[in-house]
Amino acid sequence: MTQPQGKAARTRKIILEAARQVFSEHGFDNAPTSEVARVAECAEGTVFLHFKNKRGLLLALMQDFYDNLQSESEALLEKPCTDSQQLVRLAELYLVELEKNWPVVKLFGVRARRAEDEFSSRFYASNQRYTRLFVELFEQMRESGEFRRSVNPRRLRDMLFGAIEHYALSHFDRGVRIDIPELTAQILDLLFYGASEPSNLVGSEAKLDRILALLERQV
Amino acid sequence: MTQPQGKAARTRKIILEAARQVFSEHGFDNAPTSEVARVAECAEGTVFLHFKNKRGLLLALMQDFYDNLQSESEALLEKPCTDSQQLVRLAELYLVELEKNWPVVKLFGVRARRAEDEFSSRFYASNQRYTRLFVELFEQMRESGEFRRSVNPRRLRDMLFGAIEHYALSHFDRGVRIDIPELTAQILDLLFYGASEPSNLVGSEAKLDRILALLERQV
Repeated sequence: MTQPQGKAARTRKIILEAARQVFSEHGFDNAPTSEVARVAECAEGTVFLHFKNKRGLLLALMQDFYDNLQSESEALLEKPCTDSQQLVRLAELYLVELEKNWPVVKLFGVRARRAEDEFSSRFYASNQRYTRLFVELFEQMRESGEFRRSVNPRRLRDMLFGAIEHYALSHFDRGVRIDIPELTAQILDLLFYGASEPSNLVGSEAKLDRILALLERQV
Repeated sequence: MTQPQGKAARTRKIILEAARQVFSEHGFDNAPTSEVARVAECAEGTVFLHFKNKRGLLLALMQDFYDNLQSESEALLEKPCTDSQQLVRLAELYLVELEKNWPVVKLFGVRARRAEDEFSSRFYASNQRYTRLFVELFEQMRESGEFRRSVNPRRLRDMLFGAIEHYALSHFDRGVRIDIPELTAQILDLLFYGASEPSNLVGSEAKLDRILALLERQV
């Protein structure tokens, strides 16, 4: 996307910041564009010069959120480290951005689910492009043998983002500050190792050790 | 909750079924109550005799969905079988009900997230009461040693419901019929065993090779 340059770009940015503030406070339906103009310290006409309507403001906030998330995530993926470290970094970045932008991110999500229109299709396209980074990482981990062959990378994506959203809805709404590294570790631990006590392995290991000891004594 | 009896109860049921149909077709905001009355073959006044307003209709549909889900799930839990079998049954029941009721369930979810009011608090209370059944089952599986002690049952709940919702949003909206036992198996397999190739086996493999070598030398 080409962005406007110079003074126009600065005005656009100021208006968007004002919209973020006003939407966070009033929700979307009850947010007056006159209030956005007041906070941005410009005429209401200037708002409409930069954005078609109130929905255009939300659309721009949504697009900015995903464009920023996408480029920061791609930058992380450039850094050399193991696949599982990449996953931890990507997930933590997502949680940081989600927490920081929660009031508007929640508005995007609700708006996208409410009606199927341009907003909805652009939301899902951005979301899919972004979550694709995770699916590719999961595929890579399956290729390298780190993950089981039978694992479906798209189900892993559903679990990771589903768990985060579920958690966000019950915590961020109440303004609870969260321990992001701790939450990431909990979720990724479950994603990697599951809930089961690896009981068979413990048993087999112990038996193998006894057999080995007996054999080594004999031979 | 006490339910109205006899003729009143039947009328109430017919109106609710009409509302389900009209909301599924038009969404909530654009659904006229006159259309609900027309489908229910009653006067619009009769609708308002049974329900305060349009929101009251959605509230009743939501409450019916959860009451039904709760009692069917509790009935399943009465049947004797292992904890993991219970989990499979509960998850499959949820997916069946979710698929069947998707257009209105989606409306509940959006409505509850849009504003904090009586609708929202009753939605979250019903949801929490229902998902508590899963948290208790997870706690039981941790107690019995089937799950690792370090596992957080609420994170497992987040992952299970998060994954299902994520999947539902991308499939049910497109009217894709899903293979419920297959999807349940995929999600619960990940929840139980995680994605990782159990690398301890690599160690066991090495030990088995040494044992074989030793035995072959002896025999």
